[in-house]
Amino acid sequence: MVYLNGDFIAKNKASISIMDRGFLFGDGVYEVIPVYNGKIFRLQAHLDRLQKSLDSIQITNPYKTKKYLDILTQLISFSSVKDQSIYLQITRGADTQRKHIFDALIPTIYIESNPLISKTKQELSKGFSAISAQDIRWSRCDIKSISLLANILYAQDAKKHNVEEVILHRNNQITEGATSNVFMLKDNTLFTHPTGPNILSGITRDLVISSAKACKLNVQEMPFSLDDIRQADGLWVSSSTREIMPITLLDDQPINQGVIHPAWSCVFDHYQQLKND
Amino acid sequence: MVYLNGDFIAKNKASISIMDRGFLFGDGVYEVIPVYNGKIFRLQAHLDRLQKSLDSIQITNPYKTKKYLDILTQLISFSSVKDQSIYLQITRGADTQRKHIFDALIPTIYIESNPLISKTKQELSKGFSAISAQDIRWSRCDIKSISLLANILYAQDAKKHNVEEVILHRNNQITEGATSNVFMLKDNTLFTHPTGPNILSGITRDLVISSAKACKLNVQEMPFSLDDIRQADGLWVSSSTREIMPITLLDDQPINQGVIHPAWSCVFDHYQQLKND
Repeated sequence: MVYLNGDFIAKNKASISIMDRGFLFGDGVYEVIPVYNGKIFRLQAHLDRLQKSLDSIQITNPYKTKKYLDILTQLISFSSVKDQSIYLQITRGADTQRKHIFDALIPTIYIESNPLISKTKQELSKGFSAISAQDIRWSRCDIKSISLLANILYAQDAKKHNVEEVILHRNNQITEGATSNVFMLKDNTLFTHPTGPNILSGITRDLVISSAKACKLNVQEMPFSLDDIRQADGLWVSSSTREIMPITLLDDQPINQGVIHPAWSCVFDHYQQLKND
Repeated sequence: MVYLNGDFIAKNKASISIMDRGFLFGDGVYEVIPVYNGKIFRLQAHLDRLQKSLDSIQITNPYKTKKYLDILTQLISFSSVKDQSIYLQITRGADTQRKHIFDALIPTIYIESNPLISKTKQELSKGFSAISAQDIRWSRCDIKSISLLANILYAQDAKKHNVEEVILHRNNQITEGATSNVFMLKDNTLFTHPTGPNILSGITRDLVISSAKACKLNVQEMPFSLDDIRQADGLWVSSSTREIMPITLLDDQPINQGVIHPAWSCVFDHYQQLKND
């Protein structure tokens, strides 16, 4: 069962008009919200970010928090699986004709929830591979938009190279991963790109920062380069589905000689505690 | 009537799965093809560009030229209007679940055709207004992608400012308009940004270049700046629906003292001749 515009229906029955501006223009935004042990994780933070994304593209939020909570609670109850990943998408809705400009339309709201299988600490501690690439995306990556073609091409490139993620750089600065935030550990300091138009302000990113501080790491939200990474003590990518994933091989070259710095273990453990908050 | 995946159906009956990657990711490409006096204009050029767009994002073209011709011919025959604008969109199709990476799917093909009302020479010769803005789009604007959120925001900005178009600049170079190519006339030379990843290689753009040469203008496909424009003898934007539109007011400042250079009239007339080819 999925949620579409007020109804819970079978996923294979869920359809939208070809005039939906999500389909014609990628004119919409989305959120991915984890559910741990039956509890929706950081709902308000996700709804706050959703609101920011909607405001940025001038879509009026169709629902209030209570309504979202009711829908999501019902949706996750359809499955007995305790850990789930909620996908929530809002588009501007369907107009009668295709035109770039818009008036107020009735937004399309689509929500689904699927089992979330997080990697275990043991699995993560094997380390993962990534490649680097020029960041060709637009300059409003702070909006969690469904116009994701660049990200699609990166994901496919990662698949082709048999790596987990693509680490992006713009003007010689690491911005983020194609579907994650990026952290560099160097001399007991954890660096990550500052929030702004070039990255998505990740909710997992905030939690990694909190966890790092709890582990007595210094945290610097400032730019760093691809060259910096190659000399780093650690490279991690974070997202709500990946949590905190250590990258030990970048462009076929080992990071920190392929050894995961012990700080990762501490930060990972703290993050797991936060999941139970 | 519209065309969707093999069938001609009523537009309000045309729907797609919420799993269509056009809806979830803006994962598709499109073309807009004019029909003049019942004849499809430069079909092969449009299909060639469609092929390039599809190749760029690794979608296998579902149809050959003959099939497109058959569909479009039938579609435009539903209306007695002689001038039409065909909209043709291909997305990667629907997967069973939302994930960035893709395998081969059955593409979704949507085509509609609407009356095309071109502005008369008299209407165009009144001149139009535009504003300038930083080009925030991605770095593959040569792909005619449906991930168009940046363009949507520009179009809405134009509407808000009550102007016809937004002229974009990147690194102090004019790239193109939000939905057009841009030409600057200076000292009998017509300048336009060279083709490459920062602009769409417009079919109307090519025709404007041909027409300009026929009018004894020099044509230079090279970058120029916003400052250059302010000193220009003329500023035009082109697209299949706008044809060649003179901009006489940019950011509330007149171009060439608000006077349309006589070369425009010659190029416009030549372009009209090409429409009858």
